[in-house]
Amino acid sequence: MNKGRVTIPTDDNFIKETLEIAEKWGADGIRDCDGFKLPREIKGLAERIYSTYFVARGDNEWAEANREELQQTYLMTKHHVAVENKLTIKIMDGYFAEQVEPDTYHDIKTWWEVIDRTTNEVVPTENWTYSEESGEVTINNVSKWHEYTVSFLAYCIWDPTQMYNHITNNWGDKPHEMPFDARKPKTNKHIIEAMYNWLDEHPESNVVRFTTFFYHFTLVFNDLAKEKFVDWFGYSSSVSPEALDEFEKVKGYRLRPEDIIDQGYYNSPFRVPSKAFLDYIDFQQQFVAENVKKLVDVVHEAGREAMMFLGDNWIGTEPYGKYFESIGLDGVVGSVGGGATLRMISDIPGVKYTEGRFLPYFFPDTFYEGNDPTIEARDNWITARRAIMRKPVDRIGYGGYLSLAYKFPKFVEYIESVCDEFREIYDNIDNSKPYCGLKVGVLNCFGKLRSWQTHMVAHALWYKQIYTYLGIIESLSGMSLDVEFISFDDIKQNGVPSDIDVIINAGDAGTSFSGGEKWLDKEIVTTLRGWIYNGGGFVGVGEPSAVLEGGHFFQLAEALGVDKELGFSLSTDKYFKTPVEKHFITEDVVEPFDFGESQKNVYSKSKDTEIICYENGDLLMSANRYGKGRAVYIAGLPYSIQNTRILMRSCFYAAGKEDEMKKWYADNLNCEVSAYLETKKYAVVNNSNEEQTTLVYDGNGNSVQMTLDPCEIKWINMV
Amino acid sequence: MNKGRVTIPTDDNFIKETLEIAEKWGADGIRDCDGFKLPREIKGLAERIYSTYFVARGDNEWAEANREELQQTYLMTKHHVAVENKLTIKIMDGYFAEQVEPDTYHDIKTWWEVIDRTTNEVVPTENWTYSEESGEVTINNVSKWHEYTVSFLAYCIWDPTQMYNHITNNWGDKPHEMPFDARKPKTNKHIIEAMYNWLDEHPESNVVRFTTFFYHFTLVFNDLAKEKFVDWFGYSSSVSPEALDEFEKVKGYRLRPEDIIDQGYYNSPFRVPSKAFLDYIDFQQQFVAENVKKLVDVVHEAGREAMMFLGDNWIGTEPYGKYFESIGLDGVVGSVGGGATLRMISDIPGVKYTEGRFLPYFFPDTFYEGNDPTIEARDNWITARRAIMRKPVDRIGYGGYLSLAYKFPKFVEYIESVCDEFREIYDNIDNSKPYCGLKVGVLNCFGKLRSWQTHMVAHALWYKQIYTYLGIIESLSGMSLDVEFISFDDIKQNGVPSDIDVIINAGDAGTSFSGGEKWLDKEIVTTLRGWIYNGGGFVGVGEPSAVLEGGHFFQLAEALGVDKELGFSLSTDKYFKTPVEKHFITEDVVEPFDFGESQKNVYSKSKDTEIICYENGDLLMSANRYGKGRAVYIAGLPYSIQNTRILMRSCFYAAGKEDEMKKWYADNLNCEVSAYLETKKYAVVNNSNEEQTTLVYDGNGNSVQMTLDPCEIKWINMV
Repeated sequence: MNKGRVTIPTDDNFIKETLEIAEKWGADGIRDCDGFKLPREIKGLAERIYSTYFVARGDNEWAEANREELQQTYLMTKHHVAVENKLTIKIMDGYFAEQVEPDTYHDIKTWWEVIDRTTNEVVPTENWTYSEESGEVTINNVSKWHEYTVSFLAYCIWDPTQMYNHITNNWGDKPHEMPFDARKPKTNKHIIEAMYNWLDEHPESNVVRFTTFFYHFTLVFNDLAKEKFVDWFGYSSSVSPEALDEFEKVKGYRLRPEDIIDQGYYNSPFRVPSKAFLDYIDFQQQFVAENVKKLVDVVHEAGREAMMFLGDNWIGTEPYGKYFESIGLDGVVGSVGGGATLRMISDIPGVKYTEGRFLPYFFPDTFYEGNDPTIEARDNWITARRAIMRKPVDRIGYGGYLSLAYKFPKFVEYIESVCDEFREIYDNIDNSKPYCGLKVGVLNCFGKLRSWQTHMVAHALWYKQIYTYLGIIESLSGMSLDVEFISFDDIKQNGVPSDIDVIINAGDAGTSFSGGEKWLDKEIVTTLRGWIYNGGGFVGVGEPSAVLEGGHFFQLAEALGVDKELGFSLSTDKYFKTPVEKHFITEDVVEPFDFGESQKNVYSKSKDTEIICYENGDLLMSANRYGKGRAVYIAGLPYSIQNTRILMRSCFYAAGKEDEMKKWYADNLNCEVSAYLETKKYAVVNNSNEEQTTLVYDGNGNSVQMTLDPCEIKWINMV
Repeated sequence: MNKGRVTIPTDDNFIKETLEIAEKWGADGIRDCDGFKLPREIKGLAERIYSTYFVARGDNEWAEANREELQQTYLMTKHHVAVENKLTIKIMDGYFAEQVEPDTYHDIKTWWEVIDRTTNEVVPTENWTYSEESGEVTINNVSKWHEYTVSFLAYCIWDPTQMYNHITNNWGDKPHEMPFDARKPKTNKHIIEAMYNWLDEHPESNVVRFTTFFYHFTLVFNDLAKEKFVDWFGYSSSVSPEALDEFEKVKGYRLRPEDIIDQGYYNSPFRVPSKAFLDYIDFQQQFVAENVKKLVDVVHEAGREAMMFLGDNWIGTEPYGKYFESIGLDGVVGSVGGGATLRMISDIPGVKYTEGRFLPYFFPDTFYEGNDPTIEARDNWITARRAIMRKPVDRIGYGGYLSLAYKFPKFVEYIESVCDEFREIYDNIDNSKPYCGLKVGVLNCFGKLRSWQTHMVAHALWYKQIYTYLGIIESLSGMSLDVEFISFDDIKQNGVPSDIDVIINAGDAGTSFSGGEKWLDKEIVTTLRGWIYNGGGFVGVGEPSAVLEGGHFFQLAEALGVDKELGFSLSTDKYFKTPVEKHFITEDVVEPFDFGESQKNVYSKSKDTEIICYENGDLLMSANRYGKGRAVYIAGLPYSIQNTRILMRSCFYAAGKEDEMKKWYADNLNCEVSAYLETKKYAVVNNSNEEQTTLVYDGNGNSVQMTLDPCEIKWINMV
């Protein structure tokens, strides 16, 4: 039996058992984890020894000596209403003084901004003062009953990840790690030197696992030491006067604090991004890539591999960004929450390998007496496996305390089967591309840059406003379709790529994912209308193409055959409410529809719209012809096996390729087929925990009946 | 027992029975109804004989002879996408050729408009042509994939009400009544002459019941002869080249067809009204008032009374408009659907009397064997009675075929009790004003003009998007509060009236009722913030003060203590989800909350917000202090007895006058108290069909227990 492609953590005084597990799971990699340091004698005990390395924290001596080179962040106070002609705002109200402190080292009149949020006007600097002693900004000559905010630059005096771990685990008086800024001149030099030193001092490892580089995603705590603001994509904590001055030189114009503050939304990925913000992230990505490359070069000089953890201080190294490949990293490792996060890792271009860290983490919250950690492991594996079938990561791994997992023999045995199954899949696919029935483009404001990362707030966390759309990405991650992420700007500049069969646009009105004001761009909207009319397929979920203009709310209302009633057209009678008796899209449906948060007040515009689901006065699913093309509307698609099938059928229907769906296809919606034409193998997977019987169709549409055990994967050689 | 204040219909060969019923019900008025003409011998058989009179239809000889003076309307085609560089649009597609026909008598290049709805640009007239033969507009040099509409002027060749009755009742080859336009010179003169003639020919009646005057509300049928568009407030069918030319002279600028067409929304009352539209309705109201006054003068000259039916061709005579009183009408009669419509009639200023036509209408759809028409009558009476207690109409009446009702003796008896109860209430109130605990201002874009007429599409019809807000108006109609309707423009010009305790703002985002862009007006928003902060009360329902700006969606978010999450601030943690244990507002709640269509994603902005109801991740009811003032948020308030009590308590709480609520008050929410300090009487009503026991509080807060029969009203003399 083959071995390798698996990384395991180790533990204090646990070398013998570590090797025992490594043997059992076929692990060829051992990593340190959570504060535990690898012993020197680990060297050579596995092919691959990973050591965690922090670039911009963990050296408080340096940080203390160069406090003006600490990382910085932009913060906004809450809104304060002026009740007299003077207004005083305590700027740190609601912030955590152990995490951030106002920067008065740099000129506050240059770097801070007081804004009248009722008029959107900046208050002249001569009209406000700041008292360091009281921590208050006093604004004079305010307009009564207007609301004001202060945007201020602050120093980050505690790395957010260490802060989180410190507070969560009650680390008491353990020092707070202060993050220093690679853009500041002394620190930039220091970081390189520290890298050399560290490599010298750590001969035992041959893989440097960067956790991570320069800037943490935005994670700000409140005055109760709890999370106040989290944005896994946030660039707010990558700012500094140096960065903003340099930005002006590079991009030819100056950013205002407000370009980062964004009314307190801080350029959340749900905002349609401004040009200034897009320029800023481009600018930071370029800087980070150039400087991370220097570190990677040092690692390579030392004959080691350089690996990046996808998270924490990853800002600027977005792996689908245009500078990422130039860094020259060997690998990327990330946490796998399901299919979408797996594809986010496995599709990363320009690295030699990718690695997924699977769940559960070997921590006492899961590994306690009486609990069966196998359940979480199986759920995690089965959802991720769908995506692995389409594009595998090159390695899998686990994290936490191995000594904990060791006490659960059933779990150890289950993971052994997972590792074997993973290697079997990997070998059978053998780097070939599986058969794809269609190519789908997911259209939003970020396109390729945020491949597999739409509708996300904090990494893999559930939010009420996102699960309805995340389901689409999760479904797609394991579907036998080709998937590309495209932006409105791509469409504007280059039109719709010629190989796209179906465009999916999903999200709440006004968000970057639905597109908001992008739909007012006549080049974009006409390009898409024309593309659909000429035979393209469009699947809109939630409030696709939504922005009120020209008598429509959905700008593709005529193509979709539906629009949403905001009240303005209530006077127009809505007659079309009767669903079709059956429809291609819902032929496999076995349980009640689940539209998640769903939509209200969507209605059919004409008798020609094929209404597929209509409940309580709301149209929830429909299809429509538009010239030679077709458009499908769905009110929401949280992830489920049934919704995955509904989405797949929607795509084939929209593309007008219903006849081609039953190739490498299983009619039982609990099963999926992936076919690898190059390696002449195909696999049928059972995504459920029950036995399933299904017709399995080959590439010519011939079918044969099969029965699969719970979660089974069957490999078959093509004839 | 007293008599009078009641109007009944009569019927063919039914004089004896009519007098019998008149005697029973104490009716002093007899009216004609639905085509039936009063016989000459009716004269003198009752104090008041009403004859229906149509001003602008029913004289097809005139209409045929003066076709160019028929009424006109502006219509828009649906959106058509350009798929090549020429586009042909059949303009009557979807319209009913028996109702409207394109006006080619006037210069189409002046009066029609072809619009590129993708750019909002008007297509130059030289780029399109119209063929009368094919009924098609052909647009040349179109932009591919842009959408185009044609706005065209049409003649109305069938009065909408007659059309509706004709089609509904299968009147076969009965002539279609063509409406002629009082603004056209010959017709204007003709209408006055016809009035003289009609009075001469109808000596039997002493009350002319105008049904109604010049312009019908917008009611357009589709090509299947079914309703396509209905707006009870619509002015679209009052247009003509003469009107638009005159408008320019009076107002100093020219209207475009688009000012009427409004992207196909036709200035629905849900639209925040444009200045052009407000100017236009002012202009038409002035014209209609002046010219109706001439007719009323003729009626008065003849020694008769002039009464207006509130509906049908009522456009221009909005009774709360600024020219209405100048008409000099004696009375207004309208159909009563419940409390709100009753108050809409009874509060009309400047007439000698108002009359409510109650339900059921004596038609076979209710009066058939096996059905009990008493049920509808009781529901109608009990809901309307709440409003009568606050401000009675001066008369009540019924419509339809009296001979039908006559066959239902139980019904005849029930109406006898209604008539007696009505007269008892009327006499006990004796034109005095009942005690009001508070004064409430309902704030929207129309204010006084549309008193009691908010959120309405077609008169008293249920729509999914309106019942959640109409409930507020229905509740208020019978509440012991003073109610005023105020507009944003009032606030801008004059501030909040000094006698207002509580402002209610209710509606969906962007609508005229919530206010939409009016909340961007800094004078308006700061006036309201200051007013609340200084002690005012605010009750927001649905999406109050909603427009995205300055970091808030609700512009009064800080006052309300809540905002709505559109996705942009998902990164900010929302901690405050725990409801208070009990709250003044919900002390009387006896059944599950009903928020109607409710709201999603409203959240508390601070720990100080008192959350009253929070379900499934959504805040649905809350209260908040703002300076010395308070604001209450409610997700929706469809009409119910319980929601009426919730609204009443919300108002007292918002006003900070909880201590004053229990004056002339019943603690059982099925009961209400109205006190008439001038006549030294008070009444306790039971609004339910069950017996109720309640504590009844007098004006000093002393209470006594009472038990009331189902629907009972108890009158008590003050001591």
